Amino acid sequence: MAVQTVAGNATTAPVDLGPAAALSCRECGERFELGPLFACASCFGPLEVAYDLPTGSPEELRKRIEAGPDNIWRYAPLLPVPADVADKPNLNPGFTKLVKADNLARELGVTGGLYVKDDSGNPTHSFKDRVVAIAVEAARAFGFTTLSCSSTGNLAGAVGAAAARAGLRSCVFIPHDLEQGKVVMAAVYGGELVGIEGNYDDVNRFCSELIGDPLGEGWGFVNVNLRPYYGEGSKTLAYEICEQLGWRLPDQIVIPIASGSQLTKIDKGLQELIKLGLVEDRPYKIFGAQAEGCSPVSAAFKGGHDVVRPQKPNTIAKSLAIGNPADGPYVLDIARRTGGAVEDVTDEQVVDAIKLLARTEGIFGETAGGVTLGVTKKLIEAGVIDPTLTTVVVNTGDGLKTLDAVSATSQATATIKPSLDAFRAAGLGTA
Amino acid sequence: MAVQTVAGNATTAPVDLGPAAALSCRECGERFELGPLFACASCFGPLEVAYDLPTGSPEELRKRIEAGPDNIWRYAPLLPVPADVADKPNLNPGFTKLVKADNLARELGVTGGLYVKDDSGNPTHSFKDRVVAIAVEAARAFGFTTLSCSSTGNLAGAVGAAAARAGLRSCVFIPHDLEQGKVVMAAVYGGELVGIEGNYDDVNRFCSELIGDPLGEGWGFVNVNLRPYYGEGSKTLAYEICEQLGWRLPDQIVIPIASGSQLTKIDKGLQELIKLGLVEDRPYKIFGAQAEGCSPVSAAFKGGHDVVRPQKPNTIAKSLAIGNPADGPYVLDIARRTGGAVEDVTDEQVVDAIKLLARTEGIFGETAGGVTLGVTKKLIEAGVIDPTLTTVVVNTGDGLKTLDAVSATSQATATIKPSLDAFRAAGLGTA
Repeated sequence: MAVQTVAGNATTAPVDLGPAAALSCRECGERFELGPLFACASCFGPLEVAYDLPTGSPEELRKRIEAGPDNIWRYAPLLPVPADVADKPNLNPGFTKLVKADNLARELGVTGGLYVKDDSGNPTHSFKDRVVAIAVEAARAFGFTTLSCSSTGNLAGAVGAAAARAGLRSCVFIPHDLEQGKVVMAAVYGGELVGIEGNYDDVNRFCSELIGDPLGEGWGFVNVNLRPYYGEGSKTLAYEICEQLGWRLPDQIVIPIASGSQLTKIDKGLQELIKLGLVEDRPYKIFGAQAEGCSPVSAAFKGGHDVVRPQKPNTIAKSLAIGNPADGPYVLDIARRTGGAVEDVTDEQVVDAIKLLARTEGIFGETAGGVTLGVTKKLIEAGVIDPTLTTVVVNTGDGLKTLDAVSATSQATATIKPSLDAFRAAGLGTA
Repeated sequence: MAVQTVAGNATTAPVDLGPAAALSCRECGERFELGPLFACASCFGPLEVAYDLPTGSPEELRKRIEAGPDNIWRYAPLLPVPADVADKPNLNPGFTKLVKADNLARELGVTGGLYVKDDSGNPTHSFKDRVVAIAVEAARAFGFTTLSCSSTGNLAGAVGAAAARAGLRSCVFIPHDLEQGKVVMAAVYGGELVGIEGNYDDVNRFCSELIGDPLGEGWGFVNVNLRPYYGEGSKTLAYEICEQLGWRLPDQIVIPIASGSQLTKIDKGLQELIKLGLVEDRPYKIFGAQAEGCSPVSAAFKGGHDVVRPQKPNTIAKSLAIGNPADGPYVLDIARRTGGAVEDVTDEQVVDAIKLLARTEGIFGETAGGVTLGVTKKLIEAGVIDPTLTTVVVNTGDGLKTLDAVSATSQATATIKPSLDAFRAAGLGTA
């Protein structure tokens, strides 16, 4: 395989992204030199990072990882980042809690071990900190001085915060009519925040134009020209889950689908662990979760199709509301190959699942977490997820960012005057 | 010292709270058996936990701690909790990041090392998870089945979440006119949430009545009858800061003051580390931070008084708005003994400090964090905090919970049509 030389690199220094060896086309396999590229020059297929993975015994590698920092940089030997990444200023996301959810397991009748991987514990409280942290290293390697993205929420905050800490300029693009809370969260880190008159698709289209224009010179768009690197951050969810299970694959794992990237990268991470001998090679099933109001991948899975037909999103799970998910076909492949499934739930089931998780485990997840747990419940009830096997549910974000979803049904039980008589009359208390 | 036997204990089993030996009066020193007590029967002074601290070499103890879990339970040998605490279902707070804040240090001219202890990384995103986790163990030890508190925000969520996970009932009391967002956060965990017609003082008074009534039988109020245990959770901030500095005392530490409990317990924690030989015994200075609109301790410090005169709070830093802080006099003692100070800042300075921290380090703190950083800045400029020494600033909570404080000044830089011309006309971009 010939390695092609690429232009568009803002620096001439040799690129050191650790074990990352090249970019490789997921469709035709053609390889390209590491650079700010995202589509194959030959077939327009998506590019992903190819590695020279570490050699040596699994025992040595496990020890090396376990001796690392309590964040994603413990996996630096498996990521497109330089070896000294942990010494640079960044937000150090990851190594979030894998909660053994015994209360929830009892309610759902799961006996094989139920776990919630709770990514609300990341610095800006969503899994986006993982992917952005990797994109920051790519931006540094390519000499970019501005970090940018199109976003409707979680990503905007993650990019703003990471850029601030890294000493990069940031410029984030959002639809102009975003909820005030999300605007504040995106603006508080002090970067440029530009409202675009239009919807999220208009924002995206504008960003693609900007990348090709001198106005965007030196800009790293984490989810466009840095996307191959950015996406690799999701692999760390797979690494952490297995390490936290005692270097063991889960039997079943349920993952939300927006673009589908996270699910495909978790699968990639699991495959790498097997290849490296860090976990025993045995079957695992991957399940994808969508909201009914934006369920193109679920519809294709259930219809037995290979093609994902775009939908116009209409769901409270806005962080998953991508009607034309780029990685949809890969998700279908993975679900089918592993014997998993893709399913969807209604907005009402999303709200119920958010409250179920909060009530049983004290974890307040965002709507995406509600989608994932809702689908888990549905698939257990349908006999598709086996309750006697180890199951991991990924909660990708924080309920504080989607308060509106539960506000109608999460209110005070009673309002009373400050007296014991009023308390007694309300039927509260022990006696 | 005679140990008095106490009634009011809902269980007859012997109480196992690890190294906790007794309750001891902070004023007269009288000791009481471990139980749900909070005031000295002789002098009405506040009770605190007295320990049989571990013996053995500092090296052994350090190793034991370092081999423990990545949460506050690594310090179980120094806390009023049973030895098997980490095996029980709880939220496992703590071991939050100590961020070396080099960008912020440059802006403030600090050369001796500036660190932010970022407690927004806790499960419900405030330091309250630490204190509530300890209260849960006390509630279990005393056979309480309901966890309760009066709260205006952070504590309500922390209690609701911790009770859910621990399998305890919860009943949280709040002023009836609390902001909707805070109500939702308190209600989502599924416990009872009771709005009291009145202000926070009315809520508190009602809770004190309820403790003495059969209606409140079997109830553990984390900040009333479990307060001596609850307060000890703040010691873990001291332990973590020192361990994360490489088992070293910081020279200067800046802490927000609400009731003053956190500051006094951090000092207690530092003293214990010195006594146990875990850190070298050398001078450290403790600084207390208040908002000008609720600055009774700062006013007393600056006036040279020993008595703290109550104030009617009026500040955006609502989580610090306690006009009559119970531990105020102890805070004054500690600030004076260590050579520290107590200072206050205006609401405008609070907002500026929140944005300064976000802009330089990508950390979005709540208003209490703004108070603490604002005071740090003020005291550096006044020459009171020495910029050539190691300084730790404690951020106790999350900006997502106090969005209103920054919303007026955190908005989009520009709103434009989705075209390069519009982008250029707005003066944005590189070229």
